[in-house]
Amino acid sequence: MTTRNACLARDALDPLAPLRAQFDLPAGVIYLDGNSLGARPHASLARAQQVIAREWGHDLIRSWNSAGWFELPGRLGNRLAPLIGAAAGEVVVTDTTSINLFKALAAALHMQASDPARAARRVIVTERSNFPTDIYMAQGLSQWLERGYRVRLIDDVAELASAVDADTAVVMLTHVNYRTGYQHDMRATSTLAHAAGALIIWDLAHSAGAVPVDLHADGADLAVGCTYKYLNGGPGAPAFIWVPAKHQARFQQPLSGWWGHAAPFAMAPDFAPANGIARALCGTQPVVSLAMVECGLDVFELTSMDAIRAKSLALTDLFITLVEQRCAAHPLGLVTPREHARRGSHVSFTHPHGYAVMAALIARGVIGDYREPAIMRFGFTPLYTSFTDVWDAVEILSDILERQTYDIDARRDAVT
Amino acid sequence: MTTRNACLARDALDPLAPLRAQFDLPAGVIYLDGNSLGARPHASLARAQQVIAREWGHDLIRSWNSAGWFELPGRLGNRLAPLIGAAAGEVVVTDTTSINLFKALAAALHMQASDPARAARRVIVTERSNFPTDIYMAQGLSQWLERGYRVRLIDDVAELASAVDADTAVVMLTHVNYRTGYQHDMRATSTLAHAAGALIIWDLAHSAGAVPVDLHADGADLAVGCTYKYLNGGPGAPAFIWVPAKHQARFQQPLSGWWGHAAPFAMAPDFAPANGIARALCGTQPVVSLAMVECGLDVFELTSMDAIRAKSLALTDLFITLVEQRCAAHPLGLVTPREHARRGSHVSFTHPHGYAVMAALIARGVIGDYREPAIMRFGFTPLYTSFTDVWDAVEILSDILERQTYDIDARRDAVT
Repeated sequence: MTTRNACLARDALDPLAPLRAQFDLPAGVIYLDGNSLGARPHASLARAQQVIAREWGHDLIRSWNSAGWFELPGRLGNRLAPLIGAAAGEVVVTDTTSINLFKALAAALHMQASDPARAARRVIVTERSNFPTDIYMAQGLSQWLERGYRVRLIDDVAELASAVDADTAVVMLTHVNYRTGYQHDMRATSTLAHAAGALIIWDLAHSAGAVPVDLHADGADLAVGCTYKYLNGGPGAPAFIWVPAKHQARFQQPLSGWWGHAAPFAMAPDFAPANGIARALCGTQPVVSLAMVECGLDVFELTSMDAIRAKSLALTDLFITLVEQRCAAHPLGLVTPREHARRGSHVSFTHPHGYAVMAALIARGVIGDYREPAIMRFGFTPLYTSFTDVWDAVEILSDILERQTYDIDARRDAVT
Repeated sequence: MTTRNACLARDALDPLAPLRAQFDLPAGVIYLDGNSLGARPHASLARAQQVIAREWGHDLIRSWNSAGWFELPGRLGNRLAPLIGAAAGEVVVTDTTSINLFKALAAALHMQASDPARAARRVIVTERSNFPTDIYMAQGLSQWLERGYRVRLIDDVAELASAVDADTAVVMLTHVNYRTGYQHDMRATSTLAHAAGALIIWDLAHSAGAVPVDLHADGADLAVGCTYKYLNGGPGAPAFIWVPAKHQARFQQPLSGWWGHAAPFAMAPDFAPANGIARALCGTQPVVSLAMVECGLDVFELTSMDAIRAKSLALTDLFITLVEQRCAAHPLGLVTPREHARRGSHVSFTHPHGYAVMAALIARGVIGDYREPAIMRFGFTPLYTSFTDVWDAVEILSDILERQTYDIDARRDAVT
């Protein structure tokens, strides 16, 4: 059995431990919800002040050029690219994950419809357990395309092999499931999709900055993701979209705003898409929120995704082990895969009173979150979570369960 | 002839003059580009600090509820509503103007397609001189709807009466033209559209906070607009969309993300639109940029749109008069209507070397902007522009023209 002292010893040897100092974490809190909203890099406040006071307040309109505001989506995209196995000129940080998924899905359907051998395909395959907005965006787009697409929902990964068939235009999956923490095998699934003549879109919302991702090597066609979770970009910070160079010339999407135009300041009355990744842009971006994304990315350049992954697995292994040892008398059910290759960077347990237990944990300073049905989620973010945090969180969980100090009538209002 | 002393005297009597103290304006600058990027309210810096340090850094994920982040789009929409003649529960601040226009246009086309008497209409009427992104978004949507819409571009307002016909599904106009400052007659044009069986969408990018707008009284069907120009919300701050109560039940749009769901946290696999204006939302919003919109709106509650309009017309009248008096020897051409009812809150003059002259003005601290072809734009923002500013700007313009101190080979890189 491990001990708190053993955890302290592991922290003392942890090469990532010094990175915690990059973040503003409140006293008395063990933050296990960085999978939902990442913690605040200290640098973000000064960066926002610079943008607001100097660039906006003092330099005013000139900052679109002098402060490089126009270049931010592409410049931040280039900095994010190495974290997901993308090349320079293939990523922009812009809009929301939902909007970017709409662009990617529309473009993928258009690519397929433009290929005579694949033009008759009318099915989008995804998982019923996918984050709802992904399904909703696919439904929205499907219903508006009169040639008539259908969203085929699978209930188990094992169904993929049969569900992806000669009718399938696009497979659209979230790489790491928001509820269970299950991580798809990106390479095998991409291969499966391609073998059936389908394109594959990956949502990296719970992957970017959380697990190593190698989009090119693993055969992805398009990808989108989020910067406000593991990338610590700030609340609701703009999302990203990846279009590999090989698909850019064929990438067409209906949100054809002026930022995606080949010559946005020519003010021509006809849309002509920009060459390259800029065609995935649409309208003017929220500069202050966008600029802070860089402060999150800065921290990643102090380490590597391999180091992050090694610590992430060590943290989640420790959490699972300790919960199963110390809370064995209680009806907790592990939802997250034990197999490393299938695990993301959060761990979920069910409990019949999951909402009430989570509310009690939060009241004691252990911040995770709750997802229907009955799932308690605990996110492990190696940049600022210590082994001792894991120990202390389980200590408090165990105490709450042992003494039943939770209110089973607690009011429910969950957050993402 | 007026004098600088006369301008000083007008400022002394101006009831809006004290509001200039609400803004951070750099010394040595006469800022006549608030029609492109509004000046910074002092309060915005402290508000951003509060959101970043306290709400994000300290309260973390809890702020979605405790700081009301989820409610921001609707709460800010309710505060903006009185400036445009909208009711509470009809406006949300969200996404970009381009994206919101896409939603509005898609919804309007759907409303028409759902009405048997209007289902065959296949034309969207707008102006060739409209801001390009509006046309591009209409083109993008038209091309993706296989039932086949066409964008009909008119070159002159006088063509509207004939261009809007029994084939017209939607008329989509920007209320105040970004280049010329021409202001449409919203009531007459809305009546014209309705008489032809069309719906009408208004883009208020250069109207909200600039001129009185009364969407309900003037018969608008849907509207979108911008918060980073006259509303001083900050660079790229989220835009807004108005859906009047009478159209909300029929308002359906393809960007059906989880923020527009009737029960976003039920995580149901099927999209069901929220009742009311929330169905115009899509994904998670950039909270820091969004929160600063409120600081701009706060200032408007210290005055009225009637007072702002009276001063706006006085400022633009003065500018036109002084330019025509003092620069009469130079080839300047007034583009903006002299008629008050047809004028927005900026004034445009052509000059054969318009780009070079504007560059020289900016170098002397008079910040306007340039738009192809040969147009110098000067925005007049009554909250922080004085009569003496107008005098001094014309003094410098006159000097530049008299002494020809502009570089006709100046490099061109315009901004919005």
